[in-house]
Amino acid sequence: MARSYYSTVFDQPADQVWATIRDFNNYPVWVDGAGESRIEDGRTGDAVGAVRDVVYQGRRIRQQLLALSDVTRSQTYAFCEPSPLPVDHYQATLRVTPIVDGDRAFVEWEATFDCGAERREELSEFYGSAFATWLGSLRRSLER
Amino acid sequence: MARSYYSTVFDQPADQVWATIRDFNNYPVWVDGAGESRIEDGRTGDAVGAVRDVVYQGRRIRQQLLALSDVTRSQTYAFCEPSPLPVDHYQATLRVTPIVDGDRAFVEWEATFDCGAERREELSEFYGSAFATWLGSLRRSLER
Amino acid sequence: MARSYYSTVFDQPADQVWATIRDFNNYPVWVDGAGESRIEDGRTGDAVGAVRDVVYQGRRIRQQLLALSDVTRSQTYAFCEPSPLPVDHYQATLRVTPIVDGDRAFVEWEATFDCGAERREELSEFYGSAFATWLGSLRRSLER
Amino acid sequence: MARSYYSTVFDQPADQVWATIRDFNNYPVWVDGAGESRIEDGRTGDAVGAVRDVVYQGRRIRQQLLALSDVTRSQTYAFCEPSPLPVDHYQATLRVTPIVDGDRAFVEWEATFDCGAERREELSEFYGSAFATWLGSLRRSLER
Repeated sequence: MARSYYSTVFDQPADQVWATIRDFNNYPVWVDGAGESRIEDGRTGDAVGAVRDVVYQGRRIRQQLLALSDVTRSQTYAFCEPSPLPVDHYQATLRVTPIVDGDRAFVEWEATFDCGAERREELSEFYGSAFATWLGSLRRSLER
Repeated sequence: MARSYYSTVFDQPADQVWATIRDFNNYPVWVDGAGESRIEDGRTGDAVGAVRDVVYQGRRIRQQLLALSDVTRSQTYAFCEPSPLPVDHYQATLRVTPIVDGDRAFVEWEATFDCGAERREELSEFYGSAFATWLGSLRRSLER
Repeated sequence: MARSYYSTVFDQPADQVWATIRDFNNYPVWVDGAGESRIEDGRTGDAVGAVRDVVYQGRRIRQQLLALSDVTRSQTYAFCEPSPLPVDHYQATLRVTPIVDGDRAFVEWEATFDCGAERREELSEFYGSAFATWLGSLRRSLER
Repeated sequence: MARSYYSTVFDQPADQVWATIRDFNNYPVWVDGAGESRIEDGRTGDAVGAVRDVVYQGRRIRQQLLALSDVTRSQTYAFCEPSPLPVDHYQATLRVTPIVDGDRAFVEWEATFDCGAERREELSEFYGSAFATWLGSLRRSLER
């Protein structure tokens, strides 16, 4: 199982971090480099099954929301085929957990996927780095 | 932690069972005794946060969808205050898991809640029995 | 993520099924074709971290217990390197859940692993079939 | 469901924090005020089902290890009856998750239990505060 994982600490309360990322259509609000985004078929960004069609660094990407939980402050999504990189069965989860000590947030981003053995290490590192970059971008958006 | 739990086996495939219960507004379709149901504020029955306002045995009940997952085929919901019985922090999860052997479904319904110590046993049994009844009703609806 | 999964229903109560498989050294008791088994370093079969050295169909296999839970009636284990088949990061979990209706047991066996793309489907099916075979063997051992 | 929860961040790597608390008999090593501790029946501190008999602030307490996972770096335990405070069905889980950013650790301690409604708030706060105190003590022990 190829797996990418990144986690970090935010100084904002968990509910505040979650409020920003919860809506599946909010991607361009907090991810630098993400342009126009829309949810297909007139659905809302909190509807499980919704597909977002987003332009990221000039490239159109389609992703589907597979699960959303206000209990665990988490969302799970997958790429609609074809995925932009040579991976199969890609599934990612973004989760926000309260840090009681200091009223902060522990934020995790994990993906699992299949790919050719020769690119497994490279792609695992790629997504891990991307998660770090996007959470850096989320941090800046929360500090504005 | 007061806890109610009921689980059973359905002869239908997991995806078929899940297709029936997935929509939070489908309650009257598969629960005998449930009458008119509507989702408030024009939301859809797969939107996390949606509130359903349903008449059950002549009584209006309001419940909120807290989590929905097509990955684990599960939905989690709570009563909007006040709950119809003297329980606090009621939270219930309904989940459908594939039984590979025979292409059937394992269906679980669990609730946790707080209540006075003197009614804990009675209320735990009440909800456990209710889950059995409602899943019996789901079974009949799938066999129609 | 290559994944194998098999699940089935046992007529015995969950606690009875769990009592048979719980001890990591009990493999030969319920898996046909498993011969002599011993836990290394004088540890017990319920000690997390224990390594079992078992002869299966004439071949020595070493596996390590990574997690054991009497709460979820589950055990997680991995192969010690080298694994007998060309898979990496193999990790498997065997879990027993009560079926309240009929006081039976829902038994699941899942594995995730990495392997070359060209053998992914074959190896996923191999482990899925093996789980079915071993649970068939567990069933016979419980009916004796 | 009465629930207590505390979480905090440690500057040490997750594996180092887990190495200290993993052994169920290590309580006196990292909990100030805990005196002599022993595991009953000659079992080891990583054997699921093991009972520790520990003197805490002059009082003997017996607790049973219900689950241990090196995968999620977590341990779950319960009080053997009678529990020292008027709670029923007390079950607690201590978990250590890596914070990739800075190679630190996110440490959570959660308990669920039943108690009389009139003491629910007081006892929830008591355990939450106790977890904070004990993790403060763990922090000092790691900085020694």
